[in-house]
Amino acid sequence: MYHENPNLKYVEVKDVPHKNILGRVGRVSSPLPLLFNGSGIEVVVTGSDLWIELETDCDFHEPWVAYELNGFMMGRQMLLPGTHSMCLFRNMSPDVPKKIRFFREIQAMGEDDYTKILVKGFKLDGEFLEVPKFDMKIEFIGDSITSGEGTYGAFEDMDWLTMYMSVSRNYAYMTAKELNADYHMISEGGWGVYTGWDNDIRHNIPSIYEAVCGSVGPKINEELGTAEPYDFSWQPDVIVVNLGTNDSTSFVQPPFDVPGMGTFKQRLNEDGTHNREDDLKVEKAVIDFLTMLRKHNPKAHIVWCYGMLGYDLTPVLTEAVNEYRLTTKDNNVAFLNLPNTLEGEYGSHMHPGFPSHKKASILLADYIRSKVTVQ
Amino acid sequence: MYHENPNLKYVEVKDVPHKNILGRVGRVSSPLPLLFNGSGIEVVVTGSDLWIELETDCDFHEPWVAYELNGFMMGRQMLLPGTHSMCLFRNMSPDVPKKIRFFREIQAMGEDDYTKILVKGFKLDGEFLEVPKFDMKIEFIGDSITSGEGTYGAFEDMDWLTMYMSVSRNYAYMTAKELNADYHMISEGGWGVYTGWDNDIRHNIPSIYEAVCGSVGPKINEELGTAEPYDFSWQPDVIVVNLGTNDSTSFVQPPFDVPGMGTFKQRLNEDGTHNREDDLKVEKAVIDFLTMLRKHNPKAHIVWCYGMLGYDLTPVLTEAVNEYRLTTKDNNVAFLNLPNTLEGEYGSHMHPGFPSHKKASILLADYIRSKVTVQ
Amino acid sequence: MYHENPNLKYVEVKDVPHKNILGRVGRVSSPLPLLFNGSGIEVVVTGSDLWIELETDCDFHEPWVAYELNGFMMGRQMLLPGTHSMCLFRNMSPDVPKKIRFFREIQAMGEDDYTKILVKGFKLDGEFLEVPKFDMKIEFIGDSITSGEGTYGAFEDMDWLTMYMSVSRNYAYMTAKELNADYHMISEGGWGVYTGWDNDIRHNIPSIYEAVCGSVGPKINEELGTAEPYDFSWQPDVIVVNLGTNDSTSFVQPPFDVPGMGTFKQRLNEDGTHNREDDLKVEKAVIDFLTMLRKHNPKAHIVWCYGMLGYDLTPVLTEAVNEYRLTTKDNNVAFLNLPNTLEGEYGSHMHPGFPSHKKASILLADYIRSKVTVQ
Amino acid sequence: MYHENPNLKYVEVKDVPHKNILGRVGRVSSPLPLLFNGSGIEVVVTGSDLWIELETDCDFHEPWVAYELNGFMMGRQMLLPGTHSMCLFRNMSPDVPKKIRFFREIQAMGEDDYTKILVKGFKLDGEFLEVPKFDMKIEFIGDSITSGEGTYGAFEDMDWLTMYMSVSRNYAYMTAKELNADYHMISEGGWGVYTGWDNDIRHNIPSIYEAVCGSVGPKINEELGTAEPYDFSWQPDVIVVNLGTNDSTSFVQPPFDVPGMGTFKQRLNEDGTHNREDDLKVEKAVIDFLTMLRKHNPKAHIVWCYGMLGYDLTPVLTEAVNEYRLTTKDNNVAFLNLPNTLEGEYGSHMHPGFPSHKKASILLADYIRSKVTVQ
Repeated sequence: MYHENPNLKYVEVKDVPHKNILGRVGRVSSPLPLLFNGSGIEVVVTGSDLWIELETDCDFHEPWVAYELNGFMMGRQMLLPGTHSMCLFRNMSPDVPKKIRFFREIQAMGEDDYTKILVKGFKLDGEFLEVPKFDMKIEFIGDSITSGEGTYGAFEDMDWLTMYMSVSRNYAYMTAKELNADYHMISEGGWGVYTGWDNDIRHNIPSIYEAVCGSVGPKINEELGTAEPYDFSWQPDVIVVNLGTNDSTSFVQPPFDVPGMGTFKQRLNEDGTHNREDDLKVEKAVIDFLTMLRKHNPKAHIVWCYGMLGYDLTPVLTEAVNEYRLTTKDNNVAFLNLPNTLEGEYGSHMHPGFPSHKKASILLADYIRSKVTVQ
Repeated sequence: MYHENPNLKYVEVKDVPHKNILGRVGRVSSPLPLLFNGSGIEVVVTGSDLWIELETDCDFHEPWVAYELNGFMMGRQMLLPGTHSMCLFRNMSPDVPKKIRFFREIQAMGEDDYTKILVKGFKLDGEFLEVPKFDMKIEFIGDSITSGEGTYGAFEDMDWLTMYMSVSRNYAYMTAKELNADYHMISEGGWGVYTGWDNDIRHNIPSIYEAVCGSVGPKINEELGTAEPYDFSWQPDVIVVNLGTNDSTSFVQPPFDVPGMGTFKQRLNEDGTHNREDDLKVEKAVIDFLTMLRKHNPKAHIVWCYGMLGYDLTPVLTEAVNEYRLTTKDNNVAFLNLPNTLEGEYGSHMHPGFPSHKKASILLADYIRSKVTVQ
Repeated sequence: MYHENPNLKYVEVKDVPHKNILGRVGRVSSPLPLLFNGSGIEVVVTGSDLWIELETDCDFHEPWVAYELNGFMMGRQMLLPGTHSMCLFRNMSPDVPKKIRFFREIQAMGEDDYTKILVKGFKLDGEFLEVPKFDMKIEFIGDSITSGEGTYGAFEDMDWLTMYMSVSRNYAYMTAKELNADYHMISEGGWGVYTGWDNDIRHNIPSIYEAVCGSVGPKINEELGTAEPYDFSWQPDVIVVNLGTNDSTSFVQPPFDVPGMGTFKQRLNEDGTHNREDDLKVEKAVIDFLTMLRKHNPKAHIVWCYGMLGYDLTPVLTEAVNEYRLTTKDNNVAFLNLPNTLEGEYGSHMHPGFPSHKKASILLADYIRSKVTVQ
Repeated sequence: MYHENPNLKYVEVKDVPHKNILGRVGRVSSPLPLLFNGSGIEVVVTGSDLWIELETDCDFHEPWVAYELNGFMMGRQMLLPGTHSMCLFRNMSPDVPKKIRFFREIQAMGEDDYTKILVKGFKLDGEFLEVPKFDMKIEFIGDSITSGEGTYGAFEDMDWLTMYMSVSRNYAYMTAKELNADYHMISEGGWGVYTGWDNDIRHNIPSIYEAVCGSVGPKINEELGTAEPYDFSWQPDVIVVNLGTNDSTSFVQPPFDVPGMGTFKQRLNEDGTHNREDDLKVEKAVIDFLTMLRKHNPKAHIVWCYGMLGYDLTPVLTEAVNEYRLTTKDNNVAFLNLPNTLEGEYGSHMHPGFPSHKKASILLADYIRSKVTVQ
């Protein structure tokens, strides 16, 4: 018959003596908000049982979480609104140190001002030990690809729902694991560097980059200060920008009315090529974003990745990266094709599936190894 | 802000008009007890949301469950004692049919007389549609390998806990999926055909095969009739027996005292070979078990598989299978090596990991295809 | 006891009624000179036996040849100087059509003015049937990578010898086979678009592109007219240029004295970046070469590939490709990274091995499929 | 212009101071006859050039040879009757030691009393160095599978010709290489342990095992003493018998008239099962062969492998192996399934292709590692 472990003691996040926090955090860090795809907490504990205390909320887009035990992913589940006392393991050999990483599977959800995950603390009957150090720090910035959309779900599934997103089967996470890297991830499905896929120009990542978590709404901001400026105290060794796929799509989509701002449309010429003025808007956005990234991350190697859903924007992106490099004399910037998703490598919703993410992570980890000396 | 879907209606399992029940069921089928590894329920529904209503219990060994949406595994989690209203999906396109399979990840737990999972019903805002037919029926009988022990967890993890078991990354499940087969699974970690790994001769699968779920204790039996005779109305096309690994181990383990029965030990000769008398005990158990299987399953092709953790018992098993065949003139029985687990293919607790299970399932599915004409 | 087949009849190449000629040919086509990597002849015959009549020569760099029967590579061997009557198959079922492709494994050998392979004709006891049509035409232009250097040989082997080259295990050939493409290959190990790896600026591919086979010496030219202008009657659908790897290396190599021309050296700045003037020399060479390619191949899609041995020159190459595109308004040109060679994927002489070539061919074939409508 | 290397000196095989001879040899060892599949010679030399001097003959079935340089296969070719001075490499760095293994690709050819390959000696401009030692010795005994039939050629190719055989892409060779093993191979396509595939009972391997090379005819015997008793001075650590596939086929083939011996036919019962008397003939042949193998190889571990083309004969083979084991108390004998060839893994002539051979070699090498302590 089930008895609660009488030796469990509760430790608030702020009182956990050793922990790795993964992902950006703003003013509020206890309870610890998991704001982004991959945001999480890692601890090493003794004891037989470990519980994590959570508070969650949502309207339409429920949060999903996952956790790893000693580097192996044990569980993945949906969390509906409420407070949760979630058991991460029970009855393990108490003296053996166990490493647990608990993380958010889904991107910051601007579409749902209620979606949130707060880690309040842990219950355990052991001690917190020192956590392992990482070999480097990587920031990933992207769109639905970096949000892992399509890495879960059957090929036929076409709904746009959080359950199809993941960090766990996503190139960014796999790259970071391969390199033993701490990481930040900032990605929004459908967004671009200049415009969203549907010509909604509000959906550009640079506009939210300087806030703690700029894509989420007023309710979350009020509670957690997500709209406040991010302090950039966490300085990555490498910034991987994987943007352009939605900017490319906007050229073949109808115009979009942004209330109060006008109607926007990236145009094609009659021969099917891009309108040059509109390409230059994207290029300006790239250059401005690189400038912004450099301002806040003076030493990071910045690699602009692109290609997992087609190579059409390569000329525009390379032109912009080259112009930035020549104008600024900043040579610590590069462009890199990631391999296109082949037939049989798709996941759900016509997005790259696990095999495509795996392939990209192998190439990208090799690239980063060639650029960064492990600390 | 979260609002419960007001259109959800509750349907008890017994009132679900179309469903596939996976795994053995006895007297009680509503609520539906998920007694074994892989026991589950499959439905096809319309509507935007689907919830499953569960009642669970345990002492030491908590249940784990998983579910697939349209054939893709979406979630896997621990369930502690209580009643659970578990959301399987929300906000999907209501008109598109969705196939959901919900299943138990862990074997029948004789070690914990409280471990149980009952499916009481579903809440949905759509309709139950017809469920797909299977192409064949397979019964899998085995030990920890068939319980998927080690298919989750890091290589270093050595605890014996339910979280390390799975059906989802297990050769039996993968074989059944590859063949579009309905299946039953009956497996107990550490058990053999004649004796358990530690010379506890009570831990032999034949002794529990004829009951609904013979390995679990009196409390579960009282509630669900698990100790009652199984009716064998479900007739498999193929029976896969994967036993022998623990019988082999018993030869190198110390004697075991079974209270009231005596001390047992499978012996080695001085030259390291098996004591012949003790081999013959295993052989008799094999022959008796084949006879029992045939009695209850007159038309099934029976294949005795062995080898995923070494080939030592091949002579004993083949001798027994051959003797059974010659004595009974029953030629619908065969022996098949499954490939040994190689370095790099192990999961946790020195058990076959996912790559080993995958390899075995490919070989076994090919074998079954050569023996069974799809209906 | 061996008897020569009395029914063999000899047919000169010029009298073979149906054949596919692979690779560039100039004034002399019977005997057919196999001038380049991959140059070859393909026939479909009936009859039991097929022989090919060859004349070969060399000084230091002996030719290697290979052949496929029905698309499967059967043999690969060295040929020393002389005339050879080489049996391709014997005693096959006479009525079954057999497709044979015989080809040169090694690049055009400017280092050896004697290296040559001439196909004079066939001996057979059957008939020549129609040969299969190709779905597209591809021209590959490159350096040692496209010459398949390192695709044969052990990792430790460091000599620069023809036996280590191949077309058969080379990305270009695999790409063409995957796409059922006719191909031309023009590649020279150590050469670049502006300069060779050692700053010998004579070793640039554009300087030889407009001749039939511009890299080979006076003796071969006298005999076969290799220095004469190529007529560009064969118009590819796609041109794959895989150059830049040696241009990149030249920046870290010592100066090179070209007799009568001066001393050349691509320079690094003190901070390790490229000297801008020297980068611009490469860029001018790229732009000029694209212009030359376009002049002779007005409709081909041109893709500049790069990356199998590192991505260092990406900025220079993309800048040049973009400038060419913008200046000329020629949008039928693109840049594409091929994946870097990873640890474990190297062949001999620190060159990409078969796994790297295979990986590149998969990516490139996918790219070409997206650009070319099969005829 | 080609000049023969003036520093080449000729060394007869018998005078080569260091060499590994692969495969059985009888009375005549200089010139060295390459009698079997895989028979060959391995040397390590300095110098820039190496030539091998050969004498070959054939009627219908021409020999094929291949060679490896530093463990990598460089060439494979047909040899027609005559004497050949075959260059193995030229112009290599003279001081670097080079390991060359030259070997026969095809089985002993009883069908052609002329087929032969003699290695007479080497020409070189360097020295013979010590050759590497092997870690173990393995004898492979089999049929067309062990002769590598189908490992070359397109899936559609159905002729029975030597060009489709190989040692280089064959499970036996790959297993030996993986284990750094010296090996002998004795295999004949179509043969069994009791009868050939077509009920020609003369085609059983035991009948030829005790002679040097018992399957070849009087002409070769007269020259090389192939019919003389083999001396079994080479004692393997492991004997792999891969026989039974043709014995199995004989049950579904028509009767065969053996001149002067009668008509033979392995019979099926009316229900499609094997006639018991005929199964017992196979079993007797297995037991007798095991007895013969043990007599000549008292310490070898003998593993009877079976399954690459179906598992039908498993009961018969296991019964025989078990009876041999029980009767003789010889426990150093085992049975092992090799994995069946799956769709997509076939080579030519409906035989296992390279992927199937590779899969088998991985399983078999693992098995042998578990049985043999490396010397």
